[in-house]
Amino acid sequence: MAKEPRRRGAARTDELLRTTIELATEHGYAGLSIEAVARRAGVGKHTIYRRWPSMAALLLDALSRVWTTDLDYHDTGDVRADLREQFLRSAPALAAPPIGPVYRALIAEAQADETLRATLYDRFLRTVEERTLARIVRAQRAGELVAGVDLTFPAEVLCGTLYYRYLLSTRLAEEKAVDALLDMFMAAYGS
Amino acid sequence: MAKEPRRRGAARTDELLRTTIELATEHGYAGLSIEAVARRAGVGKHTIYRRWPSMAALLLDALSRVWTTDLDYHDTGDVRADLREQFLRSAPALAAPPIGPVYRALIAEAQADETLRATLYDRFLRTVEERTLARIVRAQRAGELVAGVDLTFPAEVLCGTLYYRYLLSTRLAEEKAVDALLDMFMAAYGS
Repeated sequence: MAKEPRRRGAARTDELLRTTIELATEHGYAGLSIEAVARRAGVGKHTIYRRWPSMAALLLDALSRVWTTDLDYHDTGDVRADLREQFLRSAPALAAPPIGPVYRALIAEAQADETLRATLYDRFLRTVEERTLARIVRAQRAGELVAGVDLTFPAEVLCGTLYYRYLLSTRLAEEKAVDALLDMFMAAYGS
Repeated sequence: MAKEPRRRGAARTDELLRTTIELATEHGYAGLSIEAVARRAGVGKHTIYRRWPSMAALLLDALSRVWTTDLDYHDTGDVRADLREQFLRSAPALAAPPIGPVYRALIAEAQADETLRATLYDRFLRTVEERTLARIVRAQRAGELVAGVDLTFPAEVLCGTLYYRYLLSTRLAEEKAVDALLDMFMAAYGS
């Protein structure tokens, strides 16, 4: 008995996240609001506000729902090939539904809200940088990259360059761009 | 006689751009709308729509008004020092009023609007990349950087890394980050 309402609550939460993702996919940031989500889901606004204090909080959970560990790096022992493969796989995945519209909506909200920007960084970008760093540190230990260099910031450069295209241009990080980025990275740190 | 209305028109345009910049500075993206600008300026919405078809068009012109050629690169003959100086000068200028709030509002709008993102890139980011490229190509010709390498994409990496911090974190590109970026750039291309 005690479990039933909790299960219903979880199902409702999941349904509202799915509705948010649908709306973001159909209308982008411009068509997204607590009202629009409530209307589409056929619930009152208070049902949403009970779970999420703001549109931004709802979007953060919606992004967690569509973010996938398929975006992790492989480790074949060839750092350049593994970075290349991951960049070429993740760039279109971040741009297309379901991730793209939700992620872009959140990034848009975060431009006017420094606290949200910090949360977005902590919940998503920090992990992206840490996984990139972990992959290149393994390469450094394996002798593929020069020893004795702190690779924390180079990991940020790799991520940042790809995000720049995503956020400020209509060009995806295609093969030529990724190869040029890796040329620079390997010229600087290849052993 | 014929010039008077045109002059008044230019003065009005300027006033509306100033009002937009003020509102962006006070409220950020969230508080910006054609209605809000019209109300603050004491004009009807049609007065704004006659000049700009959308909030995005108004923001593009507002950004042009506050964008300053003070953000150009110096050329002392030391490429690393000149890049460093420009990055440390422009990062806080892009983050603070008057540029910061207008730029961020536009970037937020551009997340849901691919055409706007293309326009934003063409009117602003392309210039940033081209000036960066021009400065490092001069260094290459002067023998400070290795010959025979296409520096187009490295120029994008330099810009992109700084924009990544600006858009997706609350960390400015401070000395340590700029030095690490230039370490990577010079390790890859220094002669």
